[in-house]
Amino acid sequence: MEATHSYSLQDLAATCGGEVVGDAHTLIRGVGTLELAQPGEITFLTNTLYRDLLSQTRASAVILSAVDRNATPLPRIISDNPYACYARVAQQLFPFPRIVPGIHPSAVVDPTARISASASIGPQTVIGGGAIIGEGVMIGPGCVLGENVVLEDGVRLYPRVVIYAGCRIGPRSILHSGVVLGADGFGMARDQSGWVKIPQVGRVLIGADVEIGANTTVDRGTIEDTIIEEGVKLDNQIQIAHNCRIGAHTVIAGCTGISGSTRIGSNCRIGGGVGMVGHLDICDGVTVSGFSLITKSITQPGVYTSSIPSQPHRTWMETLANLRALPQWVKKLRALEQEIQKLKEE
Amino acid sequence: MEATHSYSLQDLAATCGGEVVGDAHTLIRGVGTLELAQPGEITFLTNTLYRDLLSQTRASAVILSAVDRNATPLPRIISDNPYACYARVAQQLFPFPRIVPGIHPSAVVDPTARISASASIGPQTVIGGGAIIGEGVMIGPGCVLGENVVLEDGVRLYPRVVIYAGCRIGPRSILHSGVVLGADGFGMARDQSGWVKIPQVGRVLIGADVEIGANTTVDRGTIEDTIIEEGVKLDNQIQIAHNCRIGAHTVIAGCTGISGSTRIGSNCRIGGGVGMVGHLDICDGVTVSGFSLITKSITQPGVYTSSIPSQPHRTWMETLANLRALPQWVKKLRALEQEIQKLKEE
Amino acid sequence: MEATHSYSLQDLAATCGGEVVGDAHTLIRGVGTLELAQPGEITFLTNTLYRDLLSQTRASAVILSAVDRNATPLPRIISDNPYACYARVAQQLFPFPRIVPGIHPSAVVDPTARISASASIGPQTVIGGGAIIGEGVMIGPGCVLGENVVLEDGVRLYPRVVIYAGCRIGPRSILHSGVVLGADGFGMARDQSGWVKIPQVGRVLIGADVEIGANTTVDRGTIEDTIIEEGVKLDNQIQIAHNCRIGAHTVIAGCTGISGSTRIGSNCRIGGGVGMVGHLDICDGVTVSGFSLITKSITQPGVYTSSIPSQPHRTWMETLANLRALPQWVKKLRALEQEIQKLKEE
Repeated sequence: MEATHSYSLQDLAATCGGEVVGDAHTLIRGVGTLELAQPGEITFLTNTLYRDLLSQTRASAVILSAVDRNATPLPRIISDNPYACYARVAQQLFPFPRIVPGIHPSAVVDPTARISASASIGPQTVIGGGAIIGEGVMIGPGCVLGENVVLEDGVRLYPRVVIYAGCRIGPRSILHSGVVLGADGFGMARDQSGWVKIPQVGRVLIGADVEIGANTTVDRGTIEDTIIEEGVKLDNQIQIAHNCRIGAHTVIAGCTGISGSTRIGSNCRIGGGVGMVGHLDICDGVTVSGFSLITKSITQPGVYTSSIPSQPHRTWMETLANLRALPQWVKKLRALEQEIQKLKEE
Repeated sequence: MEATHSYSLQDLAATCGGEVVGDAHTLIRGVGTLELAQPGEITFLTNTLYRDLLSQTRASAVILSAVDRNATPLPRIISDNPYACYARVAQQLFPFPRIVPGIHPSAVVDPTARISASASIGPQTVIGGGAIIGEGVMIGPGCVLGENVVLEDGVRLYPRVVIYAGCRIGPRSILHSGVVLGADGFGMARDQSGWVKIPQVGRVLIGADVEIGANTTVDRGTIEDTIIEEGVKLDNQIQIAHNCRIGAHTVIAGCTGISGSTRIGSNCRIGGGVGMVGHLDICDGVTVSGFSLITKSITQPGVYTSSIPSQPHRTWMETLANLRALPQWVKKLRALEQEIQKLKEE
Repeated sequence: MEATHSYSLQDLAATCGGEVVGDAHTLIRGVGTLELAQPGEITFLTNTLYRDLLSQTRASAVILSAVDRNATPLPRIISDNPYACYARVAQQLFPFPRIVPGIHPSAVVDPTARISASASIGPQTVIGGGAIIGEGVMIGPGCVLGENVVLEDGVRLYPRVVIYAGCRIGPRSILHSGVVLGADGFGMARDQSGWVKIPQVGRVLIGADVEIGANTTVDRGTIEDTIIEEGVKLDNQIQIAHNCRIGAHTVIAGCTGISGSTRIGSNCRIGGGVGMVGHLDICDGVTVSGFSLITKSITQPGVYTSSIPSQPHRTWMETLANLRALPQWVKKLRALEQEIQKLKEE
């Protein structure tokens, strides 16, 4: 994949504090995988398993760790964290597109909203009264921001993000298309007339450097706020219910749902398709395997799992039949114990 | 959380038929939780477990049940359903924002659509030919309504709702951002050329007082209509497939998927992350635990479950290995039975 | 459901190569189910189980297979694939609405985009620089297409689809409302500062005759492209992560999530609510049961399952308790084996 500007290997190494081995003036104009990189591109090796591919790569340079220092004669960057180094190098080669400040004439901006002169407001976007849009903010086409929404400096909204009234997004956070922040939580009381809606009067507060994937939803708090702390990364199609708090630098993979009032600590890693019931406390440093269900609070860091990998259908159906018959097998086992006891006593 | 208007405790009690104990003129200007309420705010106690918090609350008034009548010296509302009473009180303090009737000049409304004079049509909204928009309807920015869509009186659409042609929404129903109603169901027939699309010519019909959460999708029927009856509440990111029927006052939590042609009765409670296969009949009054799978029709009210809570990874992996070995254990158990039989016969 | 035009049974039979039995001039003006069809409508029988309904139907004609040839005296179409025949007949009766070529004045189209004269660009749609829009393309209201997006001939976008820069959609593909194609994949590297974003510089490439359901998301590739091959059908609310490849004519039901870099073969059938971990290779012709988890590559066609159907809550809780106690039961079973061995040796 070709970048718009070329950089010398030396310049790229500087972005991640890596050491250059070989020709530091090698010009790099793109990135590629070990297998598919073209001349002029830089690639990376993070897993020694893939060392074999290294000898065949057509890349012009490689990022790798000290242990693989001599695994290739190509110009290279030696880094103690080659993957993070690759991230920095790729950021240099593929920066965010330059923002063109200004408000597109088709946008509808309430006169009481305060928009920084350096912000870019895309076509068809709607911004409510009292909103505050910081320096260098990019709002893509078709977004809708309710009253008094605050976007701090450097926030990026891709097309068609909706933020309900009163929510606040920390600096440099990125929201992808279809994200809905601040919709009403699922709160109602039952009486004889049916379900009575409980007004959801809290907000959603998003910290700095958060990224939220496409079509993910975060509900506003019922009374207090729903909070996503700094550095959190949420994948696509995640549902975060009202009153949750997600701790700093926690990452959550796609299709996961967190029920209301659950608090997740910092530096957790939650897999995809996970469910958590409400009102839990998950401590810092917890990993939840994909497709697992959490029904109790967790007080010890570690890995938690309840998922079952597939088997050929017939094998699984036999296992399942035995699982359901377990109470009978257990009864039978107990009967055998007694019979043996009798035999021993005879 | 502060409201825009203050009310006396007496006025608030009237909204839910509660009894005031203490100073009925206490002015309330907001709501708060037991722990975080500020002076001037009203809070509520629905669970005797939290009675301890009552002595420390800074709230100016409390809603509680008769059994907790004397648990606090604060001015209070006694109700036989304190949670529903809180809902009514909060609705009084935080009413829906007043609607400003009119059609925003940036909206694109087909001349054959009939829009009530009391309706509010937000910026960038698009309304197709033959649509009918009732009294007091609020349509937020960026919504798209296809041809002949009908919104009955008092419907509220948050920003960026899409309703395909011909669908109908009952009075006072609320649709949150990103909802898509009436997209084509997943219907196709296989022939030698690949998959042949089956036209989806039914509609989606939504009853009165329904609420549908952000990014939830309800597909139109294949031939007949998909129907959501009155008082149903759907959380975020739910998928309701073509030809389903969801009975009155049933609630469904987030991330649940209901396959095609399944009918769910009234007053059911379906948890989050649930799956139901197609063509089922679920009777009234069924509760499905979160993260469970329903594969057969249900004819008896009650609670149904198949979810497995997580354990520490190593514990679960041992359990899983034993589960998969079950057929062998069962074989061994049967062999032991026979051996014991032999021993007894000796 | 009534169509806009009527057709003779003969004309309809021609769409699917079926044989007419009975009055070939019977006029058909709509479709209905066996139970609810009205006079003038055509219905179909694909499952001999429903033969009883056939005698009561009020339909004016029926599509059925040769084996049911004499099961009704009604005018009928005999087909060796009655369901596909119904699809073709219904397509004839309910064609896509005619496209009115032109660009709505409220759309914002970059002057460097190339739009075919026969394309229809709906209100409020935004099209970026360098985009190419083919013949007969329909773009509904409120869509956003990034720079250099290519829509080949006959593509249909329902309202509010977002396609990020550089993605390409093959001829005749259909994208439903809320679809987001080409958002950044969930890629980041950890260093001492937190998570470092890895630029996602690949694209999404969609083949011919693909259909993608409402609110489904497909992420762009990290370096290479994410690819959906021809004839693939994706239901609603599916998440396809970066670098995946979905093979031709594979169908995936709603709420399923496929993790990054997984490749699924052609002609697979993936159920709803399925999860797949990343970096897998699934061969052609695999069926995955709904609600199952795939954690390993699959090299043999067949059906794979790990889902557990619900039971009454108390029954399941007993089973679950026994499941968790399995390691103890297994220990006990082994102890019994030894005791029996001792008894035998006595």
